[in-house]
Amino acid sequence: MPPALPTNPALDNDDSMLTRRFGKEIINYYSGSSANRYSFLRADGNFLRRAAAAPRTRYVALSGFNPLTNAEGTHLTRYTHKDISSLIGEQPFAVSEDDAVKQWDSTKKLPLIVFLGMVDEKDSDSIESSEHGVIKGNALFAVDVTPQKPFEQAAEDFLANHVKNGGQLQTNPRAMSLEAHDAALFAQSRSIIDWNSRIPFCAGCGHPTLSVHAGYKRVCPPTDLRGTSSAVELPSCPSRKGITNIAFPRTDPTMIAAIVSADGQRLLLGRQKSWPEHMYSTLAGFLEPGESIEESVRREAWEESGVKVGRVVVHSSQPWPYPASLMIGAIAQTLPGEGEKIQLNDKELDTAKWFEFDEVRKALDTSTGPLHLPPPEGYQPGTLRLPPQQAIANRLITAVVNGYLSGVPKM
Amino acid sequence: MPPALPTNPALDNDDSMLTRRFGKEIINYYSGSSANRYSFLRADGNFLRRAAAAPRTRYVALSGFNPLTNAEGTHLTRYTHKDISSLIGEQPFAVSEDDAVKQWDSTKKLPLIVFLGMVDEKDSDSIESSEHGVIKGNALFAVDVTPQKPFEQAAEDFLANHVKNGGQLQTNPRAMSLEAHDAALFAQSRSIIDWNSRIPFCAGCGHPTLSVHAGYKRVCPPTDLRGTSSAVELPSCPSRKGITNIAFPRTDPTMIAAIVSADGQRLLLGRQKSWPEHMYSTLAGFLEPGESIEESVRREAWEESGVKVGRVVVHSSQPWPYPASLMIGAIAQTLPGEGEKIQLNDKELDTAKWFEFDEVRKALDTSTGPLHLPPPEGYQPGTLRLPPQQAIANRLITAVVNGYLSGVPKM
Repeated sequence: MPPALPTNPALDNDDSMLTRRFGKEIINYYSGSSANRYSFLRADGNFLRRAAAAPRTRYVALSGFNPLTNAEGTHLTRYTHKDISSLIGEQPFAVSEDDAVKQWDSTKKLPLIVFLGMVDEKDSDSIESSEHGVIKGNALFAVDVTPQKPFEQAAEDFLANHVKNGGQLQTNPRAMSLEAHDAALFAQSRSIIDWNSRIPFCAGCGHPTLSVHAGYKRVCPPTDLRGTSSAVELPSCPSRKGITNIAFPRTDPTMIAAIVSADGQRLLLGRQKSWPEHMYSTLAGFLEPGESIEESVRREAWEESGVKVGRVVVHSSQPWPYPASLMIGAIAQTLPGEGEKIQLNDKELDTAKWFEFDEVRKALDTSTGPLHLPPPEGYQPGTLRLPPQQAIANRLITAVVNGYLSGVPKM
Repeated sequence: MPPALPTNPALDNDDSMLTRRFGKEIINYYSGSSANRYSFLRADGNFLRRAAAAPRTRYVALSGFNPLTNAEGTHLTRYTHKDISSLIGEQPFAVSEDDAVKQWDSTKKLPLIVFLGMVDEKDSDSIESSEHGVIKGNALFAVDVTPQKPFEQAAEDFLANHVKNGGQLQTNPRAMSLEAHDAALFAQSRSIIDWNSRIPFCAGCGHPTLSVHAGYKRVCPPTDLRGTSSAVELPSCPSRKGITNIAFPRTDPTMIAAIVSADGQRLLLGRQKSWPEHMYSTLAGFLEPGESIEESVRREAWEESGVKVGRVVVHSSQPWPYPASLMIGAIAQTLPGEGEKIQLNDKELDTAKWFEFDEVRKALDTSTGPLHLPPPEGYQPGTLRLPPQQAIANRLITAVVNGYLSGVPKM
């Protein structure tokens, strides 16, 4: 059984004008976190120091971007401050950001700790902030426990202990076995840890950068001790002046669209050569600077399959943490006649094909599942396979064959 | 008079099921380009060499990210290959990508040339590609003519000549005076030139990178001549293996939302301290990895103004080339009661306020205009000012007060 999709209790009884007009909001897997990110507290050292050691604070852990979970892979393991202090020390935020920049030594490596936010729970901590009063809730952090120098041994011991206690390192997170709320926390953690790991150098000047704002910013310090006791002055860097988008986490907007024929009777699906036989999905591709969502759908549809798309409507969105995409799910319709002719212009797809709704409905009922797992029990060899309900592709396809175009409410 | 908003002729007579259900598609300023990007031709050296010198090919130019336009600032100036060859040489794509990587010398600088795409025109060129047959249409490129060594003098002469011929360097593009189609070409050009300028170094290893794919990729070569005749071997870099999101242009998804009260009678607007007096707009903020569009609207609304948002619906999108945002425009409604209480949590805004629709309608009729220009003639001092129709904020506000929530078609 795939995990249940996320819900938002605040919208359960929603009868707003928007809902009456457009139907209920779609909430996709990897979204639906109940953590309040409090993004403005990430630079508040006083708050972070108190939060790191508060009694109800918990830490989740990733190694090589994979989550440490229970044996079933359904829940992220939560560690207390005491559990994890062998790795992160007693007080990981002891040094203020200003001092960390001044004392910057690019040869020293510390485990990355990301502030995920605060969760409202029945019993909650009260943590004083510098400028925003007392914050009520329980803090959540993510720690990158990937074994690497100089804390390689401590990380390996930590991982061995996790397994000894009945946990596992879930090395195939794309199987999407985590229950929805933990999937959202994993998505946030994985994307931010990946971003920090991927860009250790400043793209503006080429020097090593330092992670600050509890994982949400990388700064390019003006000096570097480089393992000595006297700091080297670095050349001026444009990223140190004003706000620059190279210092903040990258999110890659990606269009994904269920494309319907002009007569509303058939659905366009495509497949890549590397996929298992008979597996198809909706078309997808990165948005580019200088184009709208709708234009990106028309461009990608034409480049990948040759069809000419007319009207495009955004259906829902899904964070996709491999490494940091924002899937923007659309339903689109081709222009009549020549607009439906398939031609693989950019050769990215192996095949693109029109499918009758009935064939799609049957596959939704019997043959969905993650790309990297075998087909479900009872799968009839040779028939269409589709992505699982955790993927927005499945949600878009389901919406289309359930009457989205003709006005049946979205859910 | 502000420029007319873009249109899409393919959608003029659109009566698709999606349009009947959701209304006509909104096309925002900075989108609506008629250039077909042919993204799969950017790595095709044979095509690029022919396109660069084809008879009907045109070049637009930017200096310091600002466009070279006619005297009125309404049109980008188009140059022929001959006009611009003093700067880019006879054949800017003479060297293949493979050879450019092999011969990489980080001390040599060439003007950046971006392939914008192909435009269908009455008279069109036929340009042979390597693997995609003959491409019909007229190629468009953008060139960064910012004076800098070693082509500083040639660039200054080029700019002086442009002014002598009655053109101008439009140093305040945010006035948004370009007609819609050229605004879209400018948006594409500015974002890609900005991205290339902002990240001359590899964030994976810290070494200088080389622009390839006609401006759409930066590679980290394995060797560097560094102004000599014998190449230095560089350490291995993770960005050279597989596909990595640090090598491709960055697009920053940004939510922007018109937030309506639960009773559908009032609109929430905010202002920043640096804005002119009485200028207000919709709330906006960057999306983060691991959140959906809808969640980002709820987070930003609460962080900036304290209100609790329920249902969120995406209305339209707008590329915003300062430097490379994708504005995702939403209409949202607050939860009733306590959900409407204003409290500036993150102190980013100077004020957030509920406005009656009538006051907003009056301002839309009489007091809109770009942030950096004086208010329009006839503006009554002390009354609400709003962004111009070229900004998606204006389109969202207009949709709300014209009945979006209650089902009046979007246009």
